[in-house]
Amino acid sequence: MPLRFQSVASDKQSFARSGKLRLGEIEVNTPVFMPVGTRGSVKSLSSEDILELGYQLILGNTYHLYLKPGKEVLDHFGGLKKFMAYPNALLTDSGGFQVFSLSGLFKFEEDGVRFQSHIDGSHHKFTPESVIDMQRSIGSDIMMVLDDCAPYGSSVERLKQALDRTHRWAKQSVEYWQKNENGQNLFCIVQGGVNEALRAESLHYLQSLPFPGIALGGLSVGEPREEYVRILESLAPSLDPARPRYLMGVGTVLDILEGVRNGIDMFDCVLPTRNARNGQVFTSKGKVNLRNESHRLSTGPIDPECSCKVCKTYSLGYIRHLHKVKELSAFSLSTYHNLYFMKQFMDSLRISIENQEFGTFYTHWKKLYAS
Amino acid sequence: MPLRFQSVASDKQSFARSGKLRLGEIEVNTPVFMPVGTRGSVKSLSSEDILELGYQLILGNTYHLYLKPGKEVLDHFGGLKKFMAYPNALLTDSGGFQVFSLSGLFKFEEDGVRFQSHIDGSHHKFTPESVIDMQRSIGSDIMMVLDDCAPYGSSVERLKQALDRTHRWAKQSVEYWQKNENGQNLFCIVQGGVNEALRAESLHYLQSLPFPGIALGGLSVGEPREEYVRILESLAPSLDPARPRYLMGVGTVLDILEGVRNGIDMFDCVLPTRNARNGQVFTSKGKVNLRNESHRLSTGPIDPECSCKVCKTYSLGYIRHLHKVKELSAFSLSTYHNLYFMKQFMDSLRISIENQEFGTFYTHWKKLYAS
Repeated sequence: MPLRFQSVASDKQSFARSGKLRLGEIEVNTPVFMPVGTRGSVKSLSSEDILELGYQLILGNTYHLYLKPGKEVLDHFGGLKKFMAYPNALLTDSGGFQVFSLSGLFKFEEDGVRFQSHIDGSHHKFTPESVIDMQRSIGSDIMMVLDDCAPYGSSVERLKQALDRTHRWAKQSVEYWQKNENGQNLFCIVQGGVNEALRAESLHYLQSLPFPGIALGGLSVGEPREEYVRILESLAPSLDPARPRYLMGVGTVLDILEGVRNGIDMFDCVLPTRNARNGQVFTSKGKVNLRNESHRLSTGPIDPECSCKVCKTYSLGYIRHLHKVKELSAFSLSTYHNLYFMKQFMDSLRISIENQEFGTFYTHWKKLYAS
Repeated sequence: MPLRFQSVASDKQSFARSGKLRLGEIEVNTPVFMPVGTRGSVKSLSSEDILELGYQLILGNTYHLYLKPGKEVLDHFGGLKKFMAYPNALLTDSGGFQVFSLSGLFKFEEDGVRFQSHIDGSHHKFTPESVIDMQRSIGSDIMMVLDDCAPYGSSVERLKQALDRTHRWAKQSVEYWQKNENGQNLFCIVQGGVNEALRAESLHYLQSLPFPGIALGGLSVGEPREEYVRILESLAPSLDPARPRYLMGVGTVLDILEGVRNGIDMFDCVLPTRNARNGQVFTSKGKVNLRNESHRLSTGPIDPECSCKVCKTYSLGYIRHLHKVKELSAFSLSTYHNLYFMKQFMDSLRISIENQEFGTFYTHWKKLYAS
């Protein structure tokens, strides 16, 4: 279904805003954090867990799903949502970023990018049209365009080349999508590295096209925090208020705070799930390393202020033990907690905006998650 | 609490019987299969999963728990059940079998066995008394004695030596336990390899001591199936009807069928959980290898006759995909299914005995799981 976005409240001191994103039957409160279910599974959790946690919108990775299970399987099952027994809303990236970051070798061509699978070295090609077709097979509610995400540290020449390619492909993509929207939405991706002029140019051009939403790509890719913040601040005043804004691959509590302060509505990141598997959990008092010796005899929960089922049932000492002996349940219990934390964090963040308390919220959490 | 065992029904054609094993507040229907929670976790599942599956009795491994988290932690938490938030009944082995099978080096002494940890090579010693103390710290409802389990293929001389040691330690153990029963129960372990005379001697001697239950050790340790069945058949007529009988480390569907036919009440095995992680699940039609190419487009459940939440929610094709890409949820979903299967299998086995249909049940399942 075509999305509808409605702004609910705006912070008077910043560009922070809350809103409602409607994707068919699904209503998503923003700002929203989307857990990442790369290959049709949010790592270590089941689809029931995701529903129980209350997530209405998750992310899948087109590059991975294209390689496995592949288009034929997804077509046969009627899309990823049916395949993984997850009935809520789904966003997929275009696969471009993984081609650049995971694939051993890739080569740009006029009409797309050739690459080798990171799994078996087999040869493939993505074009702006083929990644939309793939995302149609996946059946995502929000699809992303194929773009050229130049790595941090690229020359201005390389950034300009990336922008030209990204814009050319974006135009092709939106035209291809409009021929058969089929209830799915397509977002563009603003590029330009940490160059404010190029970022402004990219935003201006892409907002002139009829994309239902705007994504910022190429941020949180290794640049210093000040650069990250500077670019967000430079773009915030020019973001179209009518459309949802998505900051791709972000992030940490700190990065989300900066994003929201600069008008971002949507986030996704593997950190809450990956860190959980590595034994780092998020709490109302900051980050906790579960493997620390100091937790060996802790009979209390991970976070006494958390009411997730993990904190209600298990002690920190037990979860530490599970991590120390590498039990699989260590990964699932810690992941469950972190995704519960992220959901609560985003909910309270949204409420702070609606209560005109975002400034206090921002200061409180920035201090807790400073390091 | 001291156990109470009550025979409920007996098959007229075999030694199969059903019963009720009461461990304090917990009532366990027998024959029973106990999932293995080696290090305080049934691998890939949470304690809630175990309760949801309906298991009243699970197994922990003393050797592993002694090394990690260790006695101090278990004492501090008030035992393993509180540590892992599992309120039902618990059985622990003595750790002896793991000393012989896992530990790099071990050496018998008059009063116990010295060994090196398989984790860090550190030196330790188990005695009949120390393993009971450790199991008191674990807080198991059923403890096992330290025994000498000679490997399959041992000479008669070695088997006799093992029997002497096992019997001597058993007598010490039961005396040590009786000084402070503390609501826990202690089972002896019958040894003797595949030598019928030694097995008979062992059973006769150990049944003369006041153990609340009798276990058979040293079976399903590599001997051919015929030897396994021959020993069970030789012991069945002499098993004390008043006490529960536990066949350690067994088993497969086939091995359980033979065990029950020969009067066994209790079983434990890592196979249902380990095989699940390796992609093999049990169904009403036999074993299924989840990784098979033939399941790629299977939209139906693992087992259409199974009503577990995995079969009610996910397709075989999806679970195959999760295994192929090694998602952690592949392990937990498959394990959940297999433990559900084992629970249903044991329940229907018990009902077949109570309905005087065990012969038909035995033939049906033996055929399905022959290979």
